[in-house]
Amino acid sequence: MLDNSLVDEYRVVLAEACGDAAVHELECPGGEALKALDKLPELFERFAEWHLTRHSIVITTGGGALSDAVGFAASVWKRGVKVIHIPTTTLAMVDAAWGGKTALNWGGMKNQIGTFELPAAVQVDARWLVTLPEREFRAGLAEAAKHAMLEPAGDLHLNSNLPQWPVQTPDSLETWTNWLVHSADTKRRIASEDLHERGRRAVLNLGHTVGHAVEALLADSRNTLLHGEAVAIGLHFALHEARNPVWKVGQNSEDVEPHAALVETWLRENVPVPPVDLPDAERMWDCMLHDKKNTAFVVQDVAWRGLGSVIWPVAWKKTSFEATWTRFVRFWDDL
Amino acid sequence: MLDNSLVDEYRVVLAEACGDAAVHELECPGGEALKALDKLPELFERFAEWHLTRHSIVITTGGGALSDAVGFAASVWKRGVKVIHIPTTTLAMVDAAWGGKTALNWGGMKNQIGTFELPAAVQVDARWLVTLPEREFRAGLAEAAKHAMLEPAGDLHLNSNLPQWPVQTPDSLETWTNWLVHSADTKRRIASEDLHERGRRAVLNLGHTVGHAVEALLADSRNTLLHGEAVAIGLHFALHEARNPVWKVGQNSEDVEPHAALVETWLRENVPVPPVDLPDAERMWDCMLHDKKNTAFVVQDVAWRGLGSVIWPVAWKKTSFEATWTRFVRFWDDL
Repeated sequence: MLDNSLVDEYRVVLAEACGDAAVHELECPGGEALKALDKLPELFERFAEWHLTRHSIVITTGGGALSDAVGFAASVWKRGVKVIHIPTTTLAMVDAAWGGKTALNWGGMKNQIGTFELPAAVQVDARWLVTLPEREFRAGLAEAAKHAMLEPAGDLHLNSNLPQWPVQTPDSLETWTNWLVHSADTKRRIASEDLHERGRRAVLNLGHTVGHAVEALLADSRNTLLHGEAVAIGLHFALHEARNPVWKVGQNSEDVEPHAALVETWLRENVPVPPVDLPDAERMWDCMLHDKKNTAFVVQDVAWRGLGSVIWPVAWKKTSFEATWTRFVRFWDDL
Repeated sequence: MLDNSLVDEYRVVLAEACGDAAVHELECPGGEALKALDKLPELFERFAEWHLTRHSIVITTGGGALSDAVGFAASVWKRGVKVIHIPTTTLAMVDAAWGGKTALNWGGMKNQIGTFELPAAVQVDARWLVTLPEREFRAGLAEAAKHAMLEPAGDLHLNSNLPQWPVQTPDSLETWTNWLVHSADTKRRIASEDLHERGRRAVLNLGHTVGHAVEALLADSRNTLLHGEAVAIGLHFALHEARNPVWKVGQNSEDVEPHAALVETWLRENVPVPPVDLPDAERMWDCMLHDKKNTAFVVQDVAWRGLGSVIWPVAWKKTSFEATWTRFVRFWDDL
């Protein structure tokens, strides 16, 4: 539920910014259900009714599913209408809104259909988060931890003196806004340098090969996890691998332990994961083999070696993944 | 109807080129009906069944509607699978297959939905044209005339010693293939220098502002025109305007008349247009105002001033368009 007074505030600001141009508004339920091919006609009908041209701008106010779906529709309408996102969830603020990956789901598979199209702008404002359920707020912070892991100075970001959440005072919200913008900048920079994911952008998948598999395998159980929570598990797994390295190249062994301890503590405090029965190694492997980023029969991953240091790409062998995962599950269950 | 022995020949060549990779084939009816949102699930089902990844290649063999529709589907599947076109119509060989504009129709409007994505390759082979109805073969040549109009040396191209169509000997087909490839090169060059149509690519719209309107307005009449025939009318109109110029800037008056005479004669001989009642000026104007390339309330066009010379953009005033069009219709009816 969005804060109505904030919606009104933005409505006024945007109407002013649009000057004499016609402004139209469409409210639609967010969430994954919107990311479907058969939801497109509804959007296109409005686009036509409003006479949207290549000179128009579509502005989304909502979470990552909304910006994925509406971003896709806009990117193909008249072969591309500009988009501005005003993300209202932590996840969208630090991650989803920035990357220019629009997406629909298809045939039970996430993000099978989409385009690469960077938004013209993204407006981050932590005030939207006040009405977000705390579990969702915290899950989104997993991506911020990932961004810190990818930055040599990520410790400064994780050690920032952040006001305890939930907060309400304007000053502490402002502090959060700045912190989230800083985190998003890692994403913005990496994504815009390799929009079409032909190379280096793949480091943003840190924690996601395992995270996606955990998310997918638990999706139908009673232990459904939020995306960010599954990513948190993926990041914990990456820390675990870094401490018990499968790949020996390019390793910076001195820094790994203190860095890993810092990230682990931060994740535990800020992104709690509900108790779950983690899938066994065999089911994980099958699921990872079918990830759309993998070339046939190879499970690619990003190995972490301390703040700002990764080995990419690495390819898992079935046996070493299963051994590492099984050890990790024991460690996780003992926590 | 495609020449089956040629299909078999390509099948063998492509299977060889693909080596050990899996090859799948889907036959589907071409034509505008394929360019619809509700045809996508059929394609996506196959894409999923075939496990198409970003490393796969989709090859189309057919006309412009097929490459538009399948090109769109491929460009959004996993955010982009590479495409190679093997065009089998004149129009697709010199124009549609090359520009990287994929497209679906929506709400009765042509090409409202699409992406910009250049094909990885296009294979031109005039042997496909032997089984094409002659009317369709000739209509596609209108775009070749347009390309010649945009090239300073376009007279050489139009004056080429082309074997009379229909031809059957391998040598004359080879001559046609080379001539078509040469024409396509104008399109390839202009489109790839400005893929997203932010500037100069718009000169490819020469003859199309009027052509699209004629095509749309006659679509439901008993005088339906093929796209190329409507474009031929648009080009004749551009020649007419060049001889009776509305815009006086940048004009090269010495060359216009001989160039116009050359193009006019070539079009009459090669792209005959069936007798039609041309729409009146008012209906034309209304239709042109709603063209998706126009910013609100301005009808943009490309004015021709001799081979390789255009004024772009020009904006029509309602009164001068109506006067010019009315004069053109009289001239056209007198032919």
